[in-house]
Amino acid sequence: MDGQMMDGQMGAFGRLLGFEIIEWRNDLAILDLRIRPEMLNRSGILHGGVLTTLIDTAGGYAGTFCAVEGHVRKALTLSLTTQFTGQTRDGVIRATARRRGGGRNTFFVDVSVTSEAGNEIAYGSGVWRYRRGHGDPNGVPAGD
Amino acid sequence: MDGQMMDGQMGAFGRLLGFEIIEWRNDLAILDLRIRPEMLNRSGILHGGVLTTLIDTAGGYAGTFCAVEGHVRKALTLSLTTQFTGQTRDGVIRATARRRGGGRNTFFVDVSVTSEAGNEIAYGSGVWRYRRGHGDPNGVPAGD
Amino acid sequence: MDGQMMDGQMGAFGRLLGFEIIEWRNDLAILDLRIRPEMLNRSGILHGGVLTTLIDTAGGYAGTFCAVEGHVRKALTLSLTTQFTGQTRDGVIRATARRRGGGRNTFFVDVSVTSEAGNEIAYGSGVWRYRRGHGDPNGVPAGD
Amino acid sequence: MDGQMMDGQMGAFGRLLGFEIIEWRNDLAILDLRIRPEMLNRSGILHGGVLTTLIDTAGGYAGTFCAVEGHVRKALTLSLTTQFTGQTRDGVIRATARRRGGGRNTFFVDVSVTSEAGNEIAYGSGVWRYRRGHGDPNGVPAGD
Repeated sequence: MDGQMMDGQMGAFGRLLGFEIIEWRNDLAILDLRIRPEMLNRSGILHGGVLTTLIDTAGGYAGTFCAVEGHVRKALTLSLTTQFTGQTRDGVIRATARRRGGGRNTFFVDVSVTSEAGNEIAYGSGVWRYRRGHGDPNGVPAGD
Repeated sequence: MDGQMMDGQMGAFGRLLGFEIIEWRNDLAILDLRIRPEMLNRSGILHGGVLTTLIDTAGGYAGTFCAVEGHVRKALTLSLTTQFTGQTRDGVIRATARRRGGGRNTFFVDVSVTSEAGNEIAYGSGVWRYRRGHGDPNGVPAGD
Repeated sequence: MDGQMMDGQMGAFGRLLGFEIIEWRNDLAILDLRIRPEMLNRSGILHGGVLTTLIDTAGGYAGTFCAVEGHVRKALTLSLTTQFTGQTRDGVIRATARRRGGGRNTFFVDVSVTSEAGNEIAYGSGVWRYRRGHGDPNGVPAGD
Repeated sequence: MDGQMMDGQMGAFGRLLGFEIIEWRNDLAILDLRIRPEMLNRSGILHGGVLTTLIDTAGGYAGTFCAVEGHVRKALTLSLTTQFTGQTRDGVIRATARRRGGGRNTFFVDVSVTSEAGNEIAYGSGVWRYRRGHGDPNGVPAGD
């Protein structure tokens, strides 16, 4: 799967923030984000919402990779928990999401976010539910 | 406290998204957000990250109201959990955050988010830690 | 539904702890528990695990009431989050669980636990998945 | 630190369930539990509350190891989230808890629970707050 196809999968909000898909394969997704000044909170550090958005996005990807050309898989987040273990205000942060359980209906993912210096600044986990038929690894034709 | 002062409290990311403070008093914060197309995900519905950002922001406000002119209170989110119970794609959504426990060091908040039609689309809860000295209801001089 | 029937629904671990069903109807469950010395932690206060067990149990009940004689409904907890807002060491505590969303496949519940003095000592929320066919309000014949 | 000392640290509820400390050192705790019939739920599988109790206990230990003879460290759980990824009904389960961040006031821990067959059946994470003075690695004299 080439970069162009992957970018085509990114939704509007992920494009607004500037998420970049670094790696996407079965049960794994790695996304990068370059922090911009408009992403800071009133204390001048990266807003926690940017982190939860990145974790939610990477987590959903980790459970919906589809190797079939022209097919896609989609899922809805049911529940998401984030622990904020550090802070940062600039540089490129990276989310690494790994599927950690589940089946054809729901799946669990763990996500770790590190700062450009390599320190973990947040981690989270959640539960997602596949849209009808999207639990199949072969996905469904895009546009369906 | 007038609207101008309250807007001055909103950080960069909250302004980027367009959060509007409707009410802010001791143990309570109500924020509105008008959904724009760039806030949707690849399924064409409101991105969960917008909801977690709204919940994180409103939750932090609910524990940091300060009635003293020129003073502020700030807190760091330690942990945040969101349950996604519904979906929406447009209109004005509203987050109502209520402080539900805690003391001078940490506090707990519950947040409910409703769609313009009045249906709950997400709710969440979290734990925040006051910055040193900010647990005092009188806060600290802004700029400190 | 009389008390005997409801007690028949309580599993082994709930009986070991001594959970008592006070009220159980559609979307609601209220359970009481009398704290015993063996439920305390090494600090001499009620172990958080007793609270999470109570929340998990009450939460599952809130989504699985069945009005049909001889039928039952069951669900699996997918994810559970608890905020520990207070402490207690004796007396009767009460969990009030309310279903807060969901459909035929999954459901969301909020639970509040109060001490005998009426103070909230914990609250939590979670996501449950119905066993196949148990999402129907009429449930399935017990023993199936 | 010998096993007898470690058992002396286990609280009443942990002893009731039969938790056994397998390993306890800085930032790590491993606890075992042999499942007994009275720990099952009304579906005949291990009650989720046993898992959350084990996760809460192991998590607290991972942040409170103290190498100083006769000293202890204690902490309160602020928030705990568990994801239930599998099921079991017998055998010895194991919780491995690792401290994943924090400082002198609060700490974060991740816990994984595996069945006797080695499959992960639950994982969780939480935030704890040290009792006053217990954030110091040297702890405080036991009995204080």
